[in-house]
Amino acid sequence: MNGAQSLLTTLTNNGIEVCFTNPGTSEMHFVAALDEVEEMRCVLCLFEGVLSGAADGYARMKGKPASTLLHLGPGLGNALANVHNARKGHSPMVNIVGDHATYHLEYDAPLTSDIEGIARPVSHWVHTSKSSADIARDAAEAVLQAGIGQVATLVLPADVSWGDNPNGAEGPVQVAGLADVPAQRVSEAAQRLRSSSNSLILIGGREVTREQGLLLDRIASTTGAQALIEVLPGKVARGAGTAVIDRLAYLAELAIDSIKDVEQLILVGASDPVSFFAYPGVPSAIAPDTCDRFVMAGPNDDITAALQALARECGAEEAEPRVHALNLPELPEGELDAAKVGMAIAHYLPEDAVLVDEGITSGMMVNMFTATARPHDQLNQTGGSIGWGLPAALGAAIAVPDRKVVCLEGDGSAMYTIQALWTMARENADVTVVIFNNRKYSILEMEFGRTGARGGVPGPSAASTLDIGSPDMDFVSMASGMGVQASRATTAEEFNAQFAEAMTQRGPRLIDAMVPTIF
Amino acid sequence: MNGAQSLLTTLTNNGIEVCFTNPGTSEMHFVAALDEVEEMRCVLCLFEGVLSGAADGYARMKGKPASTLLHLGPGLGNALANVHNARKGHSPMVNIVGDHATYHLEYDAPLTSDIEGIARPVSHWVHTSKSSADIARDAAEAVLQAGIGQVATLVLPADVSWGDNPNGAEGPVQVAGLADVPAQRVSEAAQRLRSSSNSLILIGGREVTREQGLLLDRIASTTGAQALIEVLPGKVARGAGTAVIDRLAYLAELAIDSIKDVEQLILVGASDPVSFFAYPGVPSAIAPDTCDRFVMAGPNDDITAALQALARECGAEEAEPRVHALNLPELPEGELDAAKVGMAIAHYLPEDAVLVDEGITSGMMVNMFTATARPHDQLNQTGGSIGWGLPAALGAAIAVPDRKVVCLEGDGSAMYTIQALWTMARENADVTVVIFNNRKYSILEMEFGRTGARGGVPGPSAASTLDIGSPDMDFVSMASGMGVQASRATTAEEFNAQFAEAMTQRGPRLIDAMVPTIF
Repeated sequence: MNGAQSLLTTLTNNGIEVCFTNPGTSEMHFVAALDEVEEMRCVLCLFEGVLSGAADGYARMKGKPASTLLHLGPGLGNALANVHNARKGHSPMVNIVGDHATYHLEYDAPLTSDIEGIARPVSHWVHTSKSSADIARDAAEAVLQAGIGQVATLVLPADVSWGDNPNGAEGPVQVAGLADVPAQRVSEAAQRLRSSSNSLILIGGREVTREQGLLLDRIASTTGAQALIEVLPGKVARGAGTAVIDRLAYLAELAIDSIKDVEQLILVGASDPVSFFAYPGVPSAIAPDTCDRFVMAGPNDDITAALQALARECGAEEAEPRVHALNLPELPEGELDAAKVGMAIAHYLPEDAVLVDEGITSGMMVNMFTATARPHDQLNQTGGSIGWGLPAALGAAIAVPDRKVVCLEGDGSAMYTIQALWTMARENADVTVVIFNNRKYSILEMEFGRTGARGGVPGPSAASTLDIGSPDMDFVSMASGMGVQASRATTAEEFNAQFAEAMTQRGPRLIDAMVPTIF
Repeated sequence: MNGAQSLLTTLTNNGIEVCFTNPGTSEMHFVAALDEVEEMRCVLCLFEGVLSGAADGYARMKGKPASTLLHLGPGLGNALANVHNARKGHSPMVNIVGDHATYHLEYDAPLTSDIEGIARPVSHWVHTSKSSADIARDAAEAVLQAGIGQVATLVLPADVSWGDNPNGAEGPVQVAGLADVPAQRVSEAAQRLRSSSNSLILIGGREVTREQGLLLDRIASTTGAQALIEVLPGKVARGAGTAVIDRLAYLAELAIDSIKDVEQLILVGASDPVSFFAYPGVPSAIAPDTCDRFVMAGPNDDITAALQALARECGAEEAEPRVHALNLPELPEGELDAAKVGMAIAHYLPEDAVLVDEGITSGMMVNMFTATARPHDQLNQTGGSIGWGLPAALGAAIAVPDRKVVCLEGDGSAMYTIQALWTMARENADVTVVIFNNRKYSILEMEFGRTGARGGVPGPSAASTLDIGSPDMDFVSMASGMGVQASRATTAEEFNAQFAEAMTQRGPRLIDAMVPTIF
């Protein structure tokens, strides 16, 4: 077999079943090998930012990596923002980046670039395969590296891909699972909870499951600690039957105020919370400087087991957790706004749905109502680079085809990777996209005020850069142009009917929800 | 003034009049300063790959840089592919990348990344401004670095932007112009042309002007040398009145064969030619190993003056250059194909138009006919990363608003940065976009064969990754959704009428030309 076949077989031997790709000439032997290694499903995307976001969404739902196939440094550059998001969310990811043949690099052809240099800032592990004989071993190493919640980027020169590999493929490697949290650390956490009257347990990381939430609430209620979920957990169980635990506020000013009296911060998967951005006069750290900080578990630790142990130590196992009862909002009426969109979504969202939230400002209004909707998982933006939602929804739908995916998108954020719609149509991905079409970078209007620039009031030039309503964007036209059924809703009644219908259909669907900004 | 005002004023003091941007929170003080520094025109783009390509197109038409304003590492990542293209085309570019406040970096907020690390592979110069007092000096240095055909990337921390700058702005700096070619090098070139019976002069670099072409043809005909233009010159004068000089073929096999007997290669702005990609059994170098190579001028040298001197030395000043006579094709009829599109474009293309070519395979058919069209400039893809054409056309239209811009786009390449259409509408950019909608990555079908993968014949999985016709893309819908007037042409008559009308209108217009692949 050649290098490409050896690589692909090694990946499939290790449970990597999907390759999100936008290939070019240097990857043609890899593409050819797809016909020899049929266990690999290939999902074509029209832009690399779509495929890296899809790989992230896939990994979050599957708990294992997909692979990506990218075309040299610029292809990796196009993918970079969503690789960044995946990295910040501890998503496992195996990127294969085609390069020129090794002997071709010295000629500095147009597409030659420093691929490793581009990869390093967004990858935990970067390696260039040097020969066809090495590629299987290198691929196995990439799988190992990705397996522990990391981004692994393997550069594949064209001649390594097309050269003969006498060593064949590698079999399954033993990927490290979640790490056990030492008992002593759990005991220390219990001791700290007992000794401080004002503790906060902040949970986050890759995923906050329903079970974790219930354990955490038992611990909190038994010990008198406060429990919160980090601002943007990568994946979080929500809706009826999940514990009543708030998320820390996005706005640093509110978040700081909400935990200003905390004396002890116990981190479970989450990082020490920090303001998304710096603002003149606002501290970067959210928790008070004076509070003690203790890391009980990191994002790659077995948090469920650690919480079980902590619950035992705290005598919280029998405590009755406070859970959200199912409480579906009434269907709204009249002029549409983001809150009414949220009510309708919460009303109709089917059990076990996946809600991908890149609704930015408008999305906040949905969160209020989905807290008591039917149980579902929510995926959030972990790295702050918008243009993640549509791709992540695509990837989630590929990962769990039997679950309805609903994607909340800002109009501004949708436009970074709008090409994702085409792949949704191509793959008949079961995604309902709701665009909050408020014709603004609404969050930037808010952020402009928060930074205090120009007294917080944009002048005409500045205001113009925050305004995306000239010309108005028609997402129905754009979606139709990419083969996705779409409709526009300007009233609550229209939205209710369209969203209800979408929940009964399979396949991609877009609703262009005309809403005012929420401010 | 604050750092942002000082930066903006320094840029405008140095003739940088346009800022292509997609800002975020960390850039709000820069955005606010736009209302204080009115000489800077701000062009909002919905995706950073659009704005970097636009800055490239602008620079090629203006011969001076635009600035870009980008949002942290991921924003730069989104821009990276077209920064790569600009770098390969020796386009001057000043990138301003906002970063978190200096004191905020240690907290590793979601958007924190190694911006310099991302910038370095695509920039000639990278610098992070450390204080508001330094920003004007740093901006002036960026202008100097960009001025010599380079990509300069300046990282602007938010607190440097909002902090007070007691030093104010910098005035105009003296940017190095094109470098003089030493007389001795010209003499050596002349000597070499006299001594070898089989010489090739290859011209390229930033720009091949009409005057340069005429000089080169005179020199070639007088000395018996062959003259060629490199495969993809950044900007080249074409049409009636330009010299009859072929371009080196894109296909390495053809290019190698076409110059296989060359004994001496004289490079004028162009690089030693190299195959775009490596293919098994095909050499990387296009010129024979045995030929002598001599660099008379590099891309940042004063090529016109050097050719004038060379013409004098060769006694070629009075030679009659062979020039293309105006020869407009008849208007075609019947089913549409790429050649007929080319005939109609060549027929109607107005004098002094700017033809931006990212038509990939189909574009080749247009080139044949535009060689004898009315005189115009053509911009080409210099770095091989597709998704450059629509943005570059936008930037060109901003740079030279009185000239009609025509953009040839493959359907596949259009989809990388389709968001450019919205900014065309917003700015009423006078661009007519022609999409070659052949529903294929047609060039990859060809390249698959050239690489010899799987005997050159894709299996079903491979073929599927080269096929973008499922679902079909409707560019009329997409363009309409972004406010651009659009129409579809399936016959030559339809295309003729639509293109003719577009040439009489001002403002953006898209024609979705339904064509078969040219193979």
